[in-house]
Amino acid sequence: MGGVVGEFELIARLARYLATRHDRVALGVGDDAAIVLPREAGVAVAVDVVVEGVHFRRDLSRLADVGWKAVAVNMSDLAAMAARPLAAVVGLCRPASVGPEEVEELYRGMRDACDRWGAALVGGDTVAATALAVSVTVLGDVDPARALRRSGARPGDRLVLVGTLGAAATALALTDVGVEVDATLLEAHRRPRALVAAGRALAAHGATAAIDISDGLGADLEHVCVASGVRARVRAADLPLAPGVVEAAGAAGADPVLLACAGGEDFALLATVPAEGARDAAAAASSAEGVPAAVVGTVLPAGPGPVALLELDNGEMLDLTGLGYDHYRRRIR
Amino acid sequence: MGGVVGEFELIARLARYLATRHDRVALGVGDDAAIVLPREAGVAVAVDVVVEGVHFRRDLSRLADVGWKAVAVNMSDLAAMAARPLAAVVGLCRPASVGPEEVEELYRGMRDACDRWGAALVGGDTVAATALAVSVTVLGDVDPARALRRSGARPGDRLVLVGTLGAAATALALTDVGVEVDATLLEAHRRPRALVAAGRALAAHGATAAIDISDGLGADLEHVCVASGVRARVRAADLPLAPGVVEAAGAAGADPVLLACAGGEDFALLATVPAEGARDAAAAASSAEGVPAAVVGTVLPAGPGPVALLELDNGEMLDLTGLGYDHYRRRIR
Repeated sequence: MGGVVGEFELIARLARYLATRHDRVALGVGDDAAIVLPREAGVAVAVDVVVEGVHFRRDLSRLADVGWKAVAVNMSDLAAMAARPLAAVVGLCRPASVGPEEVEELYRGMRDACDRWGAALVGGDTVAATALAVSVTVLGDVDPARALRRSGARPGDRLVLVGTLGAAATALALTDVGVEVDATLLEAHRRPRALVAAGRALAAHGATAAIDISDGLGADLEHVCVASGVRARVRAADLPLAPGVVEAAGAAGADPVLLACAGGEDFALLATVPAEGARDAAAAASSAEGVPAAVVGTVLPAGPGPVALLELDNGEMLDLTGLGYDHYRRRIR
Repeated sequence: MGGVVGEFELIARLARYLATRHDRVALGVGDDAAIVLPREAGVAVAVDVVVEGVHFRRDLSRLADVGWKAVAVNMSDLAAMAARPLAAVVGLCRPASVGPEEVEELYRGMRDACDRWGAALVGGDTVAATALAVSVTVLGDVDPARALRRSGARPGDRLVLVGTLGAAATALALTDVGVEVDATLLEAHRRPRALVAAGRALAAHGATAAIDISDGLGADLEHVCVASGVRARVRAADLPLAPGVVEAAGAAGADPVLLACAGGEDFALLATVPAEGARDAAAAASSAEGVPAAVVGTVLPAGPGPVALLELDNGEMLDLTGLGYDHYRRRIR
């Protein structure tokens, strides 16, 4: 059929975006499987799917942005383990409305993100589908004994937050109400950054647990508390909001702190660190990554009531759990 | 909303299908990433997406079959590398019509297939989508120096085929024309078998190259020939057709050999082996797996004309290339 690009032709076009000359790739694209060479005893494996209408909108993101994001959200998972990115593969569902050139653009975005974090994009499978979905799996090198798990937080540890909160959620909230959005805020939604160097710095400075803030601070802190069998209290005044969030949230009629805690898509890192080392760990993570980092709260012993609390400036305590982004309930409009 | 299962609830329900106690899993489900412990210097990585309407039909396959198949087609890629299955993760696009119980059934099929080949199902991401698509990534242990690549075939090598051809394609062809299909034939489509033990036996017996027959013998042999810079000739009389294919193809008005060469979804292994060891390699692979194996042709030096030829019983030569399954052109109806 005229104009139809078959599977094998498309594979050939996409091959140039896949890594062949990477020092940890023994066999790249073009075989039944790629072969990569891990650097450590452990390989961290994470998978995240990004789907049109849930994680991106075609009117806000170009396909290169979508490709970048599909990789970056996975790299953020590796960052939270203190793993070093090694390789990525993609399973792509492509609707007929996305032409071969657009698939190439998407691959270019994935390759750029892989390059940014030193991983090799080593393979992909593309199938015809009714909607655009990008399933990326990443591999990372990690010493299993030094990986940052969610379960290691201990009462008395401090909460260290690396990066800022609220940019992506604010950008989407403003867009929803028809207000023009500052490009920097929207870029946080389009091209999230994975704090890989920060994750490794936190591990090197004694962090006991970590998670990346993808579902919102409330939901993700709850994950750490439940996994560790602890509670935690966050001071609202100490939370590093992204530049422009306070002003923009005001314009959208939203509370900036609640938006920042519930919004999701921040890809900041939240770690727990023994009290005596918390400020040093924050400084090291900030310096490694060139982003803000702050001590924002304290890990508490298990007890009754919500496991994660937000202490407002007036001393009021809010339940942070339940403030979170759940794809099945709340979608990008 | 009543009846809606949120992301976190669904994750909790699915967690029981994920491996936690596997001797190569240092960290299972419930963190930002899983951590697995490779056994060799190399990790083979493959990804395949199976999509409703392309790789399965809901009227022919239960969701447990779909889950099995999504894993098995990837295990077949590992088999063709002579890799040993280690772990699998899944990115799942779930339409609203597929309820939580059905997702569990799909996970059960994936877990059963992982168990069958000794891999650990260590993670998954499920997103809301308009159509069902299952993107599975598998990892396998492999010594890079001993992996079977597509590029190693040499003139004079013999072609060894392990497994049988035509079952899945025949089952679908019959279904298309409304003929009731034998359960064994249909099972090849529903629950393909990955010849992992055969792949390792072939490598141990000196195989120079291998591929799994997923796109059809013609297309896949062409891949080996192009990667190796050789041509090849297959004798039709030597091809091991699946039981029932000749009779069933006749009923559908199709040529059984052409159906077997073009049909795809066989997940047989095609290897090249130096002539002197070919029969032993075939016997070892057959014995390791409990399936037929045969020497079916010869690798030829590069030259003009089609790279892959099919020699019929009457001496006629057909061009085997182009006989193949291309998802963008030919779909399951």
